[in-house]
Amino acid sequence: MCQLLGMNGNTPTDIVFSFTGFATRAVEHKDGFGIAFFEGPGVRCFVDHHSAAASPVAEMVRRYPIRSRHVISHIRKATQGRVALENTHPFVRELWGRYWVFAHNGDLKDFRPKLHAAFRPVGDTDSERAFCWLLQELAKNHASLPDVSALTATLRELAAPIAAHGSFNFLLGNGEALWAHCSTHLHWLVREHPFREARLQDADLTVNFADHAAPGDRVALVVTQPLTEGEAWQAFVPGELRAFQGGQALAV
Amino acid sequence: MCQLLGMNGNTPTDIVFSFTGFATRAVEHKDGFGIAFFEGPGVRCFVDHHSAAASPVAEMVRRYPIRSRHVISHIRKATQGRVALENTHPFVRELWGRYWVFAHNGDLKDFRPKLHAAFRPVGDTDSERAFCWLLQELAKNHASLPDVSALTATLRELAAPIAAHGSFNFLLGNGEALWAHCSTHLHWLVREHPFREARLQDADLTVNFADHAAPGDRVALVVTQPLTEGEAWQAFVPGELRAFQGGQALAV
Repeated sequence: MCQLLGMNGNTPTDIVFSFTGFATRAVEHKDGFGIAFFEGPGVRCFVDHHSAAASPVAEMVRRYPIRSRHVISHIRKATQGRVALENTHPFVRELWGRYWVFAHNGDLKDFRPKLHAAFRPVGDTDSERAFCWLLQELAKNHASLPDVSALTATLRELAAPIAAHGSFNFLLGNGEALWAHCSTHLHWLVREHPFREARLQDADLTVNFADHAAPGDRVALVVTQPLTEGEAWQAFVPGELRAFQGGQALAV
Repeated sequence: MCQLLGMNGNTPTDIVFSFTGFATRAVEHKDGFGIAFFEGPGVRCFVDHHSAAASPVAEMVRRYPIRSRHVISHIRKATQGRVALENTHPFVRELWGRYWVFAHNGDLKDFRPKLHAAFRPVGDTDSERAFCWLLQELAKNHASLPDVSALTATLRELAAPIAAHGSFNFLLGNGEALWAHCSTHLHWLVREHPFREARLQDADLTVNFADHAAPGDRVALVVTQPLTEGEAWQAFVPGELRAFQGGQALAV
C-alpha cells in the first residue's frame, strides 16, 4: 500500500515540514515517490523511482521551499504494476486547458474500463487507468470547466463504481480545489488561527506554526495517517468524498 | 529568443556535461528553464521559472546524473507570454498512451488555430498553442501510434503551415524518437566511436568521451548553437525537419 499527502491553502504555503515527516515513511514505502506543486495554473511534478528517503529529488524538495497553494504527494509500495517511472504517482493530464493531478492508494481488482477517448494510460497501474477513466467521464459530463460544487457532485458519482472494485483512496487537484476520496484510511485537518505547536510523529521535529503563519492563513491537509501529534485530525468515513478550497473543507 | 537542447541516444546517457554548458547560457536566457528526461515510456520534466544559472532545480540536475536515452531542454528569454510556470517549456501531453514532450524557440505571429479537440493550452504562449495543434492534427491523421517514418512525414506536413507564421525551431520527443525542425538556427551532431575530446564553448570544461563511452554507444545532440569546440556540428537548413532514433539521424 502507498501513502498520500495533499495540501490546499488560501495562500502559498511551504510544504517542507509536512513532506519531511511524510518522506520518513518512505523507508517502508520504498518504490518511488512523487510530489506535484501547482503555481497558478502551472504545475511541477517531481517523481523518482527511488525512495523518498534516499532520492536526490526528494532531498532537493526538502531543501528548496517551493511555496504552493496546492500540493499532492505520494509514496509508493508497489502492489500492482512494476517499479518504473511511468507507474509513479502523481499522474498529470490536461483537460479543459487545466492540469489535473491524481494520486491513488489502494488496489482495484478487475478494473478495465473502456477508454475510448482522449486519455490513455502510459504505464500499467490500476491507478492510472482509474485516473484516465475519471477524466474521460468528467469530459463527457461537462462541456467545459464547471464550478467546484458541480465537479464534486460528478466526482462523487464516478468514484463509487470504481471503489466497488476494491480500495480507492485518492487525491485529485486542478490548481483550484483538492478532492479526496476515502475507501479505507484518510485523515484531514485545517490549520488556521490561532496557530499552535505541532510535533511530527515520524521525525524529531517540532514547529510552532504561529511563528510562520499570518493570522488570515488557512491550510487544509489530507493524509493517509495523521502526520502530527497535538492536532485534531479527523478520519474520513469510507465512501466519503470531500472537496477543499481556499484551505477549507467544503460542505459535504 | 530561447535556446534548445535535445539528446537522443542508443543507450542511457548522462546529460550533465552538455547541460552544464547549456545552462551557462541562461545568464542571458533568464526567464526560466526546463528539462525533460524519458526513462522508458515514463518522463520526468523539471521546470523552474528561475534562470538555469541560479535555479536549485537546475543545480540538482547538474549534480544528479539521470541517465536517459531521450532528453529535451529549453532555456527561456520571454518574448511572448508572461514569465510563469505554465509558460515554461518543455510542455508535456499524452497521446496514444505515450507522453509527448515539446520545446520551441521562436515567435509565431497571429497563430490562433482552431483547437477543437482534446488538447488545450494551459498557459498563454504561441508555443503551447502550436504543440496542442500538432497533437490534435497527429491524432486526426493516425488512429494509433504509427511508426517513426510515418510520424516524420506527417510532422513535416504540419510544421510548414505553422512556420509560415514566423520562426518555428522546435524539438519534439515521445521516448522513441526525437524530431527537430529548424526555421532559423539549429545544429546537430552524432557522437560515436572513435570518441574524442571536446571542450565546452561556454564553460572551462573538457571531457574525453573515450573515457566515458563504450565502443557501441551513439548519441545525437541537437542544439540552437554548437555547445563544443573540436566537434563537427552540422547546421540545419531552414525548413528542415529531421528525426533521430537510436542516436542516429534518420534519412531525410
